[in-house]
Amino acid sequence: MSIPDPSGSRTEGLPPTELELSRLGEEETDVVSIAELANYIGQDVAVAGWVVHWRSSGRIAFVVLRDGTGTVQVVFRRPPGASSEGFQEGKDPVPHFALETALRVEGRVRSDPRAPSGVEIEGTAWTVVGESDGEYPIQPKAHGVDYLLDWRHLWIRAPRQAAILRLRAAVGRAIRQFLDQAGFVAVDPPILTPTAAEGTTTLFAVDYFGDRAYLSQSGQLYLEALAMALGRVYAFGPTFRAERSKTRRHLVEFWMVEPEMAFCTFEENLLWQERLISAVVEYVLAHCRSELQLLGRDIARLEQIRPPFPRLTYDEALVALKEQGMELAWGEDLGAPEEAALSQRFERPLFITHFPAAIKAFYMQPDPQRPEVVLAADLLAPEGYGEVIGGSERIADYHLLMRRIEEAGLPPESYRWYLDLRRWGSVPHSGFGVGLERLVAWLGGLPHVREAAAFPRMLYRLRP
Amino acid sequence: MSIPDPSGSRTEGLPPTELELSRLGEEETDVVSIAELANYIGQDVAVAGWVVHWRSSGRIAFVVLRDGTGTVQVVFRRPPGASSEGFQEGKDPVPHFALETALRVEGRVRSDPRAPSGVEIEGTAWTVVGESDGEYPIQPKAHGVDYLLDWRHLWIRAPRQAAILRLRAAVGRAIRQFLDQAGFVAVDPPILTPTAAEGTTTLFAVDYFGDRAYLSQSGQLYLEALAMALGRVYAFGPTFRAERSKTRRHLVEFWMVEPEMAFCTFEENLLWQERLISAVVEYVLAHCRSELQLLGRDIARLEQIRPPFPRLTYDEALVALKEQGMELAWGEDLGAPEEAALSQRFERPLFITHFPAAIKAFYMQPDPQRPEVVLAADLLAPEGYGEVIGGSERIADYHLLMRRIEEAGLPPESYRWYLDLRRWGSVPHSGFGVGLERLVAWLGGLPHVREAAAFPRMLYRLRP
Repeated sequence: MSIPDPSGSRTEGLPPTELELSRLGEEETDVVSIAELANYIGQDVAVAGWVVHWRSSGRIAFVVLRDGTGTVQVVFRRPPGASSEGFQEGKDPVPHFALETALRVEGRVRSDPRAPSGVEIEGTAWTVVGESDGEYPIQPKAHGVDYLLDWRHLWIRAPRQAAILRLRAAVGRAIRQFLDQAGFVAVDPPILTPTAAEGTTTLFAVDYFGDRAYLSQSGQLYLEALAMALGRVYAFGPTFRAERSKTRRHLVEFWMVEPEMAFCTFEENLLWQERLISAVVEYVLAHCRSELQLLGRDIARLEQIRPPFPRLTYDEALVALKEQGMELAWGEDLGAPEEAALSQRFERPLFITHFPAAIKAFYMQPDPQRPEVVLAADLLAPEGYGEVIGGSERIADYHLLMRRIEEAGLPPESYRWYLDLRRWGSVPHSGFGVGLERLVAWLGGLPHVREAAAFPRMLYRLRP
Repeated sequence: MSIPDPSGSRTEGLPPTELELSRLGEEETDVVSIAELANYIGQDVAVAGWVVHWRSSGRIAFVVLRDGTGTVQVVFRRPPGASSEGFQEGKDPVPHFALETALRVEGRVRSDPRAPSGVEIEGTAWTVVGESDGEYPIQPKAHGVDYLLDWRHLWIRAPRQAAILRLRAAVGRAIRQFLDQAGFVAVDPPILTPTAAEGTTTLFAVDYFGDRAYLSQSGQLYLEALAMALGRVYAFGPTFRAERSKTRRHLVEFWMVEPEMAFCTFEENLLWQERLISAVVEYVLAHCRSELQLLGRDIARLEQIRPPFPRLTYDEALVALKEQGMELAWGEDLGAPEEAALSQRFERPLFITHFPAAIKAFYMQPDPQRPEVVLAADLLAPEGYGEVIGGSERIADYHLLMRRIEEAGLPPESYRWYLDLRRWGSVPHSGFGVGLERLVAWLGGLPHVREAAAFPRMLYRLRP
């Protein structure tokens, strides 16, 4: 397999060294990735991949191969009178391969407007790289989801699952591109932490050389320290919540991107959120058309997503819900049904702002005009996908933060270093956290977040 | 603070909406980041940051501010006869600020060729955003490292530490850019896993709803499954080793980038490694000059790093070590002193290949010509920095892998899904893991990996 010389590499344009030539000389015909085949029309190439589909009619066989970058049909015809190298002799004149057989195929690329990739290969030779046991556990029929999750190590090969994973990678790229260009510094807060960032009931505990550590639920507290050092920062990594909930929106282990900005007010925080989400949608529309089509996504819905996003205060949300026949007492939190009802009134993501302080985290800044609510917002995705972002302005005042820690029943000594950030040059600062799997589920139109993770971790699901 | 419109955003070129105008209208003079000041020479700007240094001589005060993007000197002069807004009246005509006071400063940018940033600000007004308690714990003097690590949440504000964190972010960007451009799909293997990837003695255990989980030491086993689905993949995330070692090269929690490639031989794996490392060095030289200079890095040493990298087999390494007076019996592993001795013979990173199978992981492919050694390589950084990459070709054959699992005393039932990858279309595949903190330590010339992590986790170091 040839190794492309990625642009930007120091060796670009240089002739290969003697050492490299001698190494690459061991190779046969260059293997081309299926995604690149359209650049090789009329040329002889090799492709390496796995059999997705096979059918034969007498002297002709059709093999659909996937290699991770795409799928292509290879057509094998037995040349009249000739015994093409590699073709089986005897009664079956064309090759027969079991599902998921690994093949190396050689042939000529030709344009085929009917093919999804626009090309097909006229096969001339093949080599079996890896046999398939037969009885491939995932057949083209309906399997139960528990069965499929038990075979997740193979299920990810299915076109739909692979498309979701490519979409997830693209969403991550879009997020990083937006934040990097806006001058955010990528940082990595610790996963093993001595204290809780979000409540104490959903912590995974770890024995840390005789000390007690917890898996991070959010990098936020550390990100605040890093924002005071670097201005604008973001973390992008795994977080953990030992929640005993089995819903289509919860994973035990999930990835979050968490931007945190010094000298940033609540208002500016919302602007960053709508710009980030809009940029991600734009990127996905530009780069993931084939994945979205494969997933059956209604692309017109995504094309609606542009700033500004509508906003409702919590109080306005209660009024709207009452109109819809869903009455909540002031101070009650919104659940999934309420979020769905509210977000379905809008085509764009919806901010719910100014939540009661009592149902939000201790570190959120109270509204100076009305201290019983906090300068926090949740962003609800449209089409009933619910919360994809939670964010807030953080308390900058030492004494207020100390009081809120005490009111929350948390041990102030554990938060000493976090309080220190308010002793030496405290500034207004804000941040938010985007749940990656929820974002991917919304963008891809997935029924459940579990498909947005390569190996989802849920209540009672730790394997494979 | 103004929010730049990152290029690529959907709103670029569009006039601001009425809503955005009304929001931004609340702002005063736009705050400019210090890194951008050179574009504003002759203009009036505002800057928001923290006091790094202050000195005064009568009617003039010099304040050095940092905002995370850079540092700038602001000069305050009391205009003759006038009382400039914001200037204190009385005996002290120029402002006095304690270290780490958070300020918003207004003034005119002027060119100053003597300044590291090339500019300085003629200050006209200031606002104290956040007082400093005084007695800032980190003074411009030598503190012990344990003291500094206890104050890590403030120590990261020091210019050297902030430069290291920016370097780390740039290294991450360079790695992703190289791999994304080469067609690798970014994936996220699980952190909570039921089995060990690298030995069983250094595992952190977690109670998982009554089941037993371990923190991932490497995503590799899962990455192999993902490579069979997506071709070329990479993970970039935290990994954990409960190692009771206190060396300058070990962290308990560290980040790894782990590429894994289907249809990739041992030889091609080495080529990917030297191309990746060369691309990262090139990127850092192009984008992190000021950080490298601040760190006192010998840049000429980094400019030597280009492919191909020298190679020694393990057997050749033993001979070379003997010449250097360090005798090892065949089958013994290389330690830090041996690695340092070997790598100091070369200016470029050095591959050590073909290690004895007995000292390497169970999944590594034996050399067909000589099965007592495996197709594995470690890449040693120059200047004594030691191993920064470990990689290998993986066993593709089901029966051989099963035998190696049994020989390693591991329970085959735990590896059933991993063995499955060899039942349905197994292919030659290879991968490697780069330790991010070690890479950053080498590139930045740091004496210890702990400075390469924002909040390092080590034996007996879980706080802050």
